[in-house]
Amino acid sequence: MQGSRLITQEDIAPLARGCAVLGTGGGGDVRTGAIAVRRAVREHGDVPLITLADLPGDALVVPLSGIGAPTVGHEMIQSAEEPLLIRDEIERIFGRPPSAIMSSEIGGGNGVMPVAWAARLGLPLLDADAMGRAFPEVQMVSMYVAGLPANLVVMADVVGNVVSMRPVDGLWAERIARAVCVAAGSSALMADYVLTAAQARGAVIEGTVSRAIEIGRATRHESDPLGALARTLGAKRLVAGKVTDVDRRTTGGFARGTVTVEGVAEDKGRTLTLEIQNENLVAIEDGRALAMVPDLITVVDAQTATAVQTEGLRYGQRVAVLAWPCDPLWRTPRGLETAGPRAFGYDLDYTPVEEIA
Amino acid sequence: MQGSRLITQEDIAPLARGCAVLGTGGGGDVRTGAIAVRRAVREHGDVPLITLADLPGDALVVPLSGIGAPTVGHEMIQSAEEPLLIRDEIERIFGRPPSAIMSSEIGGGNGVMPVAWAARLGLPLLDADAMGRAFPEVQMVSMYVAGLPANLVVMADVVGNVVSMRPVDGLWAERIARAVCVAAGSSALMADYVLTAAQARGAVIEGTVSRAIEIGRATRHESDPLGALARTLGAKRLVAGKVTDVDRRTTGGFARGTVTVEGVAEDKGRTLTLEIQNENLVAIEDGRALAMVPDLITVVDAQTATAVQTEGLRYGQRVAVLAWPCDPLWRTPRGLETAGPRAFGYDLDYTPVEEIA
Repeated sequence: MQGSRLITQEDIAPLARGCAVLGTGGGGDVRTGAIAVRRAVREHGDVPLITLADLPGDALVVPLSGIGAPTVGHEMIQSAEEPLLIRDEIERIFGRPPSAIMSSEIGGGNGVMPVAWAARLGLPLLDADAMGRAFPEVQMVSMYVAGLPANLVVMADVVGNVVSMRPVDGLWAERIARAVCVAAGSSALMADYVLTAAQARGAVIEGTVSRAIEIGRATRHESDPLGALARTLGAKRLVAGKVTDVDRRTTGGFARGTVTVEGVAEDKGRTLTLEIQNENLVAIEDGRALAMVPDLITVVDAQTATAVQTEGLRYGQRVAVLAWPCDPLWRTPRGLETAGPRAFGYDLDYTPVEEIA
Repeated sequence: MQGSRLITQEDIAPLARGCAVLGTGGGGDVRTGAIAVRRAVREHGDVPLITLADLPGDALVVPLSGIGAPTVGHEMIQSAEEPLLIRDEIERIFGRPPSAIMSSEIGGGNGVMPVAWAARLGLPLLDADAMGRAFPEVQMVSMYVAGLPANLVVMADVVGNVVSMRPVDGLWAERIARAVCVAAGSSALMADYVLTAAQARGAVIEGTVSRAIEIGRATRHESDPLGALARTLGAKRLVAGKVTDVDRRTTGGFARGTVTVEGVAEDKGRTLTLEIQNENLVAIEDGRALAMVPDLITVVDAQTATAVQTEGLRYGQRVAVLAWPCDPLWRTPRGLETAGPRAFGYDLDYTPVEEIA
């Protein structure tokens, strides 16, 4: 692992800030995640951040994420046992232990927590994830888009139940995993796919952990944090204004709803609505989509440019809404079929955010 | 396997009749099961019926059952692939193939179908089951009562998804298995526990397959089929009458409801109500329980003494209701805790059927 860097206590706050930005409103609570990571790193030491080049081809990489409604995950991300249960089950199945873990979802708490899981397991973290953002469903991962068979999902819950699945495809994986998650109290830890390093090449999105840390550091010591963040992201500012409505409900393991932002100052008179299914999926003004999934849409505090996750949104809050391009993988036909607007039930043809005037 | 007998085409009709009697109204449809078994035995040959004494101590025994609401299982018991998927998963987990399969539930279609599964797998069937009757929940099995850890459940559905679970206990096994079953269309094949022959001793109810065949043959060539059946079972006749009400609904993977039988002839003026949760659980007359779970309560045709499963009950049908003692295992403290009246939400102290006047 020559050349690998370490994730230390110094990196946790920027990582959490960056993951919140990439979380597009969802992906699990970053603050609870950051607290858990600080404790795990204090107890178990810094975590090596490695690249695929550091691993032999047959090394096992385990993409991990918490599954569940963010409104529940908020409170249930506690147990230290789940990663150990999943590691043991994978060793039982493959006859050898995992060599590294990976974030399935760099956005939100699921981008932060893998540092704690890696620390606790004494394993390095791969500088990569399977989304480059956050997504609500199990099959919405780069491995699925890359055509790897969704042949193994392993879940562990806070009670200690372990469930492993060999689904016929990613859609069935999602359907069954969601049912298990709801039965387990709407929260579980999940290994979605287990990859060899050789399989992971081209099937994961590399560099996203260090990218999240870079995003989290972009606003430090800046007199214009919002401008600095937008530059680092290559993002458009869709609107600046105040939150005038938050309508959320949790059904079937998902948080769904809408958020309305009314423009102020130069945006006065404009009204932007965000459609949410765990994440911010479509930004609409006057019936016209200004940005849509799989591109990223994040609400940030107007002053500090800190990302506001959906559960943190409050009436009257001053915010800006940023939108920027997703990883090119999601713009392929299979990427859009998996996580384009129609995959979420929106009757919209995908238009890249940078092409919308 | 010296001394083992074969289950042939000649045994299928009596086995189905006997399993219907032991099904106490549920356990899955016996007619669909019998059709599938006839076809499997025609294609793959007779099935050896063995005892635990025929197996070495480390031989793997796989208790199988269909899980789901009987009203659904009725139509979905079709796929030939599920037993193969479960066998392959068990071989993957244990590193050796199963040596025999066993019925988890001798009552209803789940008592009949294992002959088809064994035929298709080319494996012998153990002359035993885990209930001696039918029960609606995953943890209501003799292995659980015997204190074996519920450490593995493997499920396969008609689509080809395979799910294996290491639950912390039988109640979690039930909760998660039920959720997976509902996600899979309310029907799946399940291996609940995988036992070595050594573990099975004292933890399964032996002789129940041959007992079901014996019960199915009891009414042949008899001028008084009802009397002959009651003698073979050691059963009380609770009432003879006609069905005047059937109230059933399917919720959360279960068929629940009540059946009312009004007495005729010598029973005129009496009204018996059966409380049902997939199976007939309590027989009540004038607010007094005449028989209760885990004792067996079965509705049979008044003329032919053929058991009528709950989904076959119709207004006006002439029936008799029989009740008889369960296996002694269910009368132990842990047996009653698992499957006594209170386990089903009835505020009743268990009284053995033979002690109720």
